Amino acid sequence: MTNNELFSQIDQHIDEHMDAYLAQLARLCEQPSVSAQGWGIEACADLVGTMLAEHGFASEVMPSGGHPVVYGEGGGRSQKTLLFYLHYDVQPPEPLDLWESPPFELTRRGDKFYARGVSDDKGHIIARLAAVSAVGHVLGELPCRVKWLIEGEEEIGSVHMPAFIAAHRHKLAADACVWEFGGVDFQGAPTLTLGMRGMCYVELSVQTASKDAHSGLGGSIFPNAAWRLAWAINTLKDSQERILIPGFYDDVVPPSARDMALLAALPDESAQIKQMFQLSGFLGGVTGGAALWRQAVFEPTCTICGLTAGYQGPGSKTVLPAQASAKIDFRLVPNQDPEDILAKLRAHLDAHGFGDVHVRYLGGGRPAKIDPDDPFVQLTAAAAAEVYGQPPVIEPIIGGSGPLYPFVDILKLPVVSAGIGYPGSNAHAPNENMDLHNFRQGIRHTARILMRFAEG
Amino acid sequence: MTNNELFSQIDQHIDEHMDAYLAQLARLCEQPSVSAQGWGIEACADLVGTMLAEHGFASEVMPSGGHPVVYGEGGGRSQKTLLFYLHYDVQPPEPLDLWESPPFELTRRGDKFYARGVSDDKGHIIARLAAVSAVGHVLGELPCRVKWLIEGEEEIGSVHMPAFIAAHRHKLAADACVWEFGGVDFQGAPTLTLGMRGMCYVELSVQTASKDAHSGLGGSIFPNAAWRLAWAINTLKDSQERILIPGFYDDVVPPSARDMALLAALPDESAQIKQMFQLSGFLGGVTGGAALWRQAVFEPTCTICGLTAGYQGPGSKTVLPAQASAKIDFRLVPNQDPEDILAKLRAHLDAHGFGDVHVRYLGGGRPAKIDPDDPFVQLTAAAAAEVYGQPPVIEPIIGGSGPLYPFVDILKLPVVSAGIGYPGSNAHAPNENMDLHNFRQGIRHTARILMRFAEG
Repeated sequence: MTNNELFSQIDQHIDEHMDAYLAQLARLCEQPSVSAQGWGIEACADLVGTMLAEHGFASEVMPSGGHPVVYGEGGGRSQKTLLFYLHYDVQPPEPLDLWESPPFELTRRGDKFYARGVSDDKGHIIARLAAVSAVGHVLGELPCRVKWLIEGEEEIGSVHMPAFIAAHRHKLAADACVWEFGGVDFQGAPTLTLGMRGMCYVELSVQTASKDAHSGLGGSIFPNAAWRLAWAINTLKDSQERILIPGFYDDVVPPSARDMALLAALPDESAQIKQMFQLSGFLGGVTGGAALWRQAVFEPTCTICGLTAGYQGPGSKTVLPAQASAKIDFRLVPNQDPEDILAKLRAHLDAHGFGDVHVRYLGGGRPAKIDPDDPFVQLTAAAAAEVYGQPPVIEPIIGGSGPLYPFVDILKLPVVSAGIGYPGSNAHAPNENMDLHNFRQGIRHTARILMRFAEG
Repeated sequence: MTNNELFSQIDQHIDEHMDAYLAQLARLCEQPSVSAQGWGIEACADLVGTMLAEHGFASEVMPSGGHPVVYGEGGGRSQKTLLFYLHYDVQPPEPLDLWESPPFELTRRGDKFYARGVSDDKGHIIARLAAVSAVGHVLGELPCRVKWLIEGEEEIGSVHMPAFIAAHRHKLAADACVWEFGGVDFQGAPTLTLGMRGMCYVELSVQTASKDAHSGLGGSIFPNAAWRLAWAINTLKDSQERILIPGFYDDVVPPSARDMALLAALPDESAQIKQMFQLSGFLGGVTGGAALWRQAVFEPTCTICGLTAGYQGPGSKTVLPAQASAKIDFRLVPNQDPEDILAKLRAHLDAHGFGDVHVRYLGGGRPAKIDPDDPFVQLTAAAAAEVYGQPPVIEPIIGGSGPLYPFVDILKLPVVSAGIGYPGSNAHAPNENMDLHNFRQGIRHTARILMRFAEG
C-alpha cells in the first residue's frame, strides 16, 4: 500500500470510531482532576493508567513528589521512540455560575462539546490514544515505540516535572516529543508552537493582626492587611506596565531577526481577540501585526491572577481585614529564571519596607525554544499541510508556559505541537469546549506524525 | 417607697427573670437578619414587632424605602417621652469556619452567650425590653411614655434613617433618646458615648473585558481589572496613612480643649487592644493615652474592608481577571459630609485617569456630637455610677458610626449610651458574644435611666 492509501484507511478508521472516542472523552471528563484543589487527582491518574492499558500499553502510576505521573510504553516495529507529553489535571471550574452546563459532565450543543478539561487537556489525551489506535489497527501493529508521560500538575506550574524528568531520563529516552496541545488559529490554519514562556507563580500574603476588627475601632490606629498588600503590589509594576523589581529585565534576550520574521508571518488576530474579549484596545497602544505578537510573547509579565481580603459578599460590612493575599503570575522570556526572579522579588519587597509581606512560591519553570530547522519540526509541518490543506503558522514562542525546558535541556528532544484546540475553546475559563471538526483533524494530524516519524 | 427601695425591687425582679430574658434572646438570635445579604429581614422585623406587642406596646412594621422599621409606643404616667433607638439587623456571619458554634443558635459556654447579633444589637433589644418590663411590673405601670425605633439597616449604613426620621419627626417626637449600644470598657467601667464619626461606604469596581482570559494569552497585552483596581486604590492613601483625595480634610474640625480633656480622662486601653488583636504596635507610632484616643476617634479614615478579583482558591490558577472590586469605608469626623467626600473621590479618580473605576455608594451619614452638659447626660452618668459602682468614662466621640445626626439635627434630642457590651464581644467578627454579668448590669442601668428620666 502507498502512504496515501494507508492514510486514507487510517482516516476512515478514525471516522468510523468517533463515537467510541467521544465516549472515552466523556468518561475522562466526568472524573474531576483539579490540581489546584487536589480534587479527584488520584482517581483520575488511575483512570488514565487504565485507559493506557486498555489500549495495549504497559502503564504505571508513578510518584512525582506531588501529584502522580502516569507513564506508559508500548509498540515498537522500529528502534525509534516517540514520546507523548500530556496532562490529566485541569483548571478549577470556578466561577461556577457562569457555566451553562455542569463542568464535569461532557455536554454536546451542536458540534461543540463542553466540560472542564475537554480541550485542556483531556481531549488531547483521547486524540493521541485515538490516533495511535487507528494507526495500530490499520498497520496491524505500531510502527515505532511509543511512550506516554501524562502528568497531574501542569495547571499548577508542573512543579515536580523537571526533577521527575531528570530522575527518569533513561526511562523517558526518546527521539522526539509531541506536546500536550495544538490546533488551529482564528483562520482555521494549523499552528506549530516552538517555544513557551517560563513562569514564576507566587502568592503574596500579609497578616497584620490575629483577627479582623471593626473598622470603626481600628480604622485610624490598626495596620490593615489589605492596605499593606495594595501598597506592596503597587511597587511591583507601574501603570505603564513597566515591572519595577530591580534587575527583573537583566536576563531578557530580545527576539532574533529570525524570530521577528516568524512573528511577521503570523496572521493578525487582533480583531478577533478584541471581539472575543470585548476589549477597547491593547496595552501600550499596539494595534496588531508583529508589534502586537512581539509584545504578547517576547515581553515578560506581572499579572495579578487573584486578590482576596476582608468582606466580599453583597452590600457593605465595616470590617478591617487582618489577612490579605494576592496570586501573581510572572511570565518569563528567554533567558529569565524563576528562582532568580523570586529572589529579586523578595529583595525588592524588603527594600520597600514590605518585610511583612510573605512570598510563597506556587510553581513555575524556565522558558524554552525549539530549533525551527529540526527535521521533526519539518515533518510535523508537512503532515499539518496535508491534513489541514495549508501550511502551519509557526510561532517561535507563545505567551503560555509549560515544562518545555526539561524536555529540551535534559532529554534533548525536538518538541512539536499538534492537536484539537481552537481559539474559542475557553481554556481556563467557564464553558471550556472543543469542536468536533477540530477534534477529528487533531487525531488525523497526530496519526500522520506517528507514521512519518516511524518511517523517517 | 424610696427610690432605693424601688431600685432594689426592680433589681430583684430582673434577677428573678433572667432565664426568661435569655429565652427571648435565644428566640431573637435564632432568626437571621443579615442586612448586607437581605437574609431574614422581613421575618425578623415581624418577630420584633410581635415582641413589642407581647410587652404591651402598640407596634407596627413601617416601610422605610429599604428594610422595614419596627415602631412601638406605650406607657405614659407622665408627659415625658423616652425614645429607644435600636436595630434588629446583624453583620454577615462570614467567615463561617471561624465560628465555634452555629452563628444563628444562641450557645452558652460558661457565662458567655454566643451568636451573631447577641451583642450587636439583639442583646440590647432584649435588655431594653427587660428593663421596661421590670419597671412596669414593680410600679404597676410605666412612669413615662416610651417609644421604640428599631431599624433594619444599621449594619449597612442606615441609608434610609435620616429621611425616615425627617418624614416621621412628629410621631418620633421625644425628650431624650437611649442609643442602641453601651457597656463597659476593659476595666469594667461603664462608658458614656457622646458622639459618632460619620461614614461614606463605597464599592469601587472595574471591568476590563467581557470575560476572564488565560494569563499566558493576555498578560502582556490585555488590561487587567485587578491591576487597574490596585493602581486606583493606591492613589487614595499613602503608606503614611495620609488620604490623598484633594479637599478630603477641608471640613475637619479639630477636637476642642474640652474634647481633649475628656480624652485625657479616658483609661489607657492600648495594652489590652494590642493583646486582643496581637498587634505589634499602632499606626503612626502612637503608643497610648490621649494621643492614641485622638488618632482613633478624631481622625478620618480610608479603610479597605474587602478586596476581590480573579482566582482566590487554593493553589494557583493562571487567569487574568476581567473584574475586580474593593469595599472601602471612609470614617468621617465633624464637619465632614459623605456626599461631599463621594464627589471628591469621583473627581480624584477621574483626575488620575481612573474614569474606568466605577464608584457605588453603599451608605453612610454625617458625624454628630452631644453636649456633655445636657441634664439627660448627667442623669445617665449618675445612674451608671450607682449600678457599676464607679462614674462612667465619657467619650466625646467614638470611632464607630451610626445615624446619630438626624436624632441631633432633626429630632433635637440629647442621646446617651448604656448597655450590655464589653470589649471581648467580637462585634462584627466570628464568635460574637455577650457576658451574663454585663447583660444584667445593662438591664439595671436602663431601668434606672427610665426611672430617673420620668421623675426628673
